Amino acid sequence: MISAPARIGSHVCEVDTPALLVELDALERNIARMQDRIAGTRLRLRPHAKTHKSTAIANLQLAAGAVGVCCQKVSEAEIMVDGGIGDVLISNEVVGAAKLDRAAALARRAKIAVCVDDSENVEQLAAAAEKFGANIDVLVELDVGANRCGVGTPAEVVRLAAAIARSRSLRFAGLQAYHGSAQHLRAHADRRRAIAGAADKVSDTLDLLRRNGLECGIVSGAGTGTFEFEIASGVYDELQVGSYVFMDADYGRNEDRDGGPVSEFENSLFLLTTVMSTPAADRAIVDAGLKALSVDSGMPLLAGCDGISYARAADEHGRLDIGGNQRFKLGEKIRLIPGHCDPTVNLHDWFVGIRNEHVECVWPVSARGAVF
Amino acid sequence: MISAPARIGSHVCEVDTPALLVELDALERNIARMQDRIAGTRLRLRPHAKTHKSTAIANLQLAAGAVGVCCQKVSEAEIMVDGGIGDVLISNEVVGAAKLDRAAALARRAKIAVCVDDSENVEQLAAAAEKFGANIDVLVELDVGANRCGVGTPAEVVRLAAAIARSRSLRFAGLQAYHGSAQHLRAHADRRRAIAGAADKVSDTLDLLRRNGLECGIVSGAGTGTFEFEIASGVYDELQVGSYVFMDADYGRNEDRDGGPVSEFENSLFLLTTVMSTPAADRAIVDAGLKALSVDSGMPLLAGCDGISYARAADEHGRLDIGGNQRFKLGEKIRLIPGHCDPTVNLHDWFVGIRNEHVECVWPVSARGAVF
Repeated sequence: MISAPARIGSHVCEVDTPALLVELDALERNIARMQDRIAGTRLRLRPHAKTHKSTAIANLQLAAGAVGVCCQKVSEAEIMVDGGIGDVLISNEVVGAAKLDRAAALARRAKIAVCVDDSENVEQLAAAAEKFGANIDVLVELDVGANRCGVGTPAEVVRLAAAIARSRSLRFAGLQAYHGSAQHLRAHADRRRAIAGAADKVSDTLDLLRRNGLECGIVSGAGTGTFEFEIASGVYDELQVGSYVFMDADYGRNEDRDGGPVSEFENSLFLLTTVMSTPAADRAIVDAGLKALSVDSGMPLLAGCDGISYARAADEHGRLDIGGNQRFKLGEKIRLIPGHCDPTVNLHDWFVGIRNEHVECVWPVSARGAVF
Repeated sequence: MISAPARIGSHVCEVDTPALLVELDALERNIARMQDRIAGTRLRLRPHAKTHKSTAIANLQLAAGAVGVCCQKVSEAEIMVDGGIGDVLISNEVVGAAKLDRAAALARRAKIAVCVDDSENVEQLAAAAEKFGANIDVLVELDVGANRCGVGTPAEVVRLAAAIARSRSLRFAGLQAYHGSAQHLRAHADRRRAIAGAADKVSDTLDLLRRNGLECGIVSGAGTGTFEFEIASGVYDELQVGSYVFMDADYGRNEDRDGGPVSEFENSLFLLTTVMSTPAADRAIVDAGLKALSVDSGMPLLAGCDGISYARAADEHGRLDIGGNQRFKLGEKIRLIPGHCDPTVNLHDWFVGIRNEHVECVWPVSARGAVF
């Protein structure tokens, strides 16, 4: 692991770059706000750790009331369990002998749930659980519109749920019903419509399960772009929101009910970068490129610098297009708002937590690179 | 660091996924071919370690005749020196007190060169070198068309070279003249034209340096897309090629002299991925998404699977569009050719080296995440 870019107590201007900054006040407000959104309801919060990959932040979420976390990968779940998180939903299919064995071994030391969308995979999972003397909770993934994983019909859910229920080592624990492609529909009405469709499909599935004598423990889903609709639907039990802790430029382009930008959660994550070259009047070059930020959802924005754009990312360089009388000084440090927080975080080994412009903590990105 | 996805001696089908595979025969042929290209010339090869970030591969390149390596970051250079590489050109500006100190400290234990394009930065570098009692070779970066870093005119080079030559702790070592944006011009003639322009500007600069009594040690530049033209130009001394060791989908779209795809170097780098869901006839989902491959230069290609495309990358999922009677089996492993090798490698902790379908070595991606 690369050594940390900052020392506790330093001023933020002394942080080496490029480095992920977390504004702790904003982070804490985001965590509290999401928990407040379900206060007084029957819903539970199970934030997605794929966003931050940090056991420190996961533990803050649990302290605020979350019941556990979600992970996408078995190796991520292992790191969360090692970091003291005792209840993990792997919100994804687990395929391949190595991963099945690791998931089963992990279920011996924590409450682990996984998702399935294939009957052969149910058998493999049951065999792994028996081999390790483990009990694994299993959710059937229902495709509610994302066109990714998941079975397509309530009848298929029932078939898989029945197969799970027949296994001695597995327990049918409910439905995974996450609508990934709805999260970044820009118009509020489009997101509402997408989740209304998802909720209808979930309702139909719950009916059919009931008629087949299968009890559905929980319905899990929702992301930062749509959670208000899953809450309102009345059919979801757990929220899997992740990005709300940090936000990013892409979520910032979603519109609220009135057509304005969504504003409930704050940007708490920034990439600190240094101006490393000022070769011409039209541009400045910063030291953060493709290896420090992910551009899959667009370029980063400059925090507090209107009229200047991060125009192009090379491997280790970013080009800022500047105009008029604007100038940057060599060595000047700038905060970028990442285009997409999750894959950007995954590029880094450290979060530098700041409050009042000083470094309060340095947290490892514990599950950075946990792709298995 | 995440534990390795493979054991030496295993069959490749036992490698956990997603994982970077290196076909060692192809890697070795690529390394030998590039060295052959400069045999009998006065040119020297200084491969760019930003591509592989591996001290193991760097040492193979040196064993084949390379004089040292290039790095883009001081932290990368530190790791190369720790791995036994005694001669490193940081082909980039070094800005900020922390980095300058580290570069100067490193120059106490290896031959280190860095680039500059700013007179204030020359002073800072000289001060750091004096503070550490180090001697640092300095190349002036000349913008030869990339519109990124570098000074724009021969006169500015002379000014900086003179300032460097006046410093007791710095040595004016030559010119950095890399044309980044020419590397992926598709047409052979366009790349030739771009490098002809670069070589003209370098020649003019060499003339002016000479007239000012400044000896230019070396001219360094070239990438995998253009090196044949830098060789032919007669003005370059060192080649900084990086991607040739692996190649990728994007370099595969460059055209040779006859308009066909370039074919001198082979794909030696693959991302092994597993089919984790087969939910519908039109698609299969694999376990490699944005956290396992970089899509900045386009989606990965499927090796040996005509007519099937990797259509969409989510954080941890990839969607393959399939049609007709094609089917994938759950758990089937597929090799992807990354769109862009450098930032893809940077996502991983391990290379799995294979020969004859068996794992021969497991190498750490030594400088993964070395962004400072």
